Amino acid sequence: MTTINASKNIFTLINVFHVEPKNQQELVDLLIEATEETMRNLPGFISANIHSSFDGKRVVNYAQWESKEHFEKMLYNSSAILHMKQAEKLVNSFDPIQAEVSDSISI
Amino acid sequence: MTTINASKNIFTLINVFHVEPKNQQELVDLLIEATEETMRNLPGFISANIHSSFDGKRVVNYAQWESKEHFEKMLYNSSAILHMKQAEKLVNSFDPIQAEVSDSISI
Repeated sequence: MTTINASKNIFTLINVFHVEPKNQQELVDLLIEATEETMRNLPGFISANIHSSFDGKRVVNYAQWESKEHFEKMLYNSSAILHMKQAEKLVNSFDPIQAEVSDSISI
Repeated sequence: MTTINASKNIFTLINVFHVEPKNQQELVDLLIEATEETMRNLPGFISANIHSSFDGKRVVNYAQWESKEHFEKMLYNSSAILHMKQAEKLVNSFDPIQAEVSDSISI
């Protein structure tokens, strides 16, 4: 289970992929496969949370890593590069947002 | 504490605000205030998680509601409207993504 907590000092990557609706499910499946096969086995991985927008035009991966350094090291992993290249073929554009949690308010 | 879980049937709004870096902290403060004063008291609110991008140009609110209907009802609440109008003054653009969790993979 993924948790969001402002007091945990972790690195969050919110990656917004813009897709044609016909490609949305294929990208979701590919991101899940990439996470299961590669990302989750890399040092510093905490979680990946794949979201499908109801309009069919976006996929959002809300991912957590122990640090920016762990995330950046992943970018040079050959399996991760292969998965990312496959994903790029399915998307019109993407906007990877590197962020920290400023506050988390829940009931 | 906020949790992300693909088996929970909830409504997720990932709202990406594009800002000038000089306005980022003010928007973060305003979203926290709006959540504490108004949103958290509305029916169906589950959580709001305010993120600051390291480049200063984005603020992301990862929000959870019990249903799309609860979220849409909030849009007509007069206090919520007031908070949203204040936020609009601080942002260049925003992209509210209505979504569901397709998968959540964590260590």
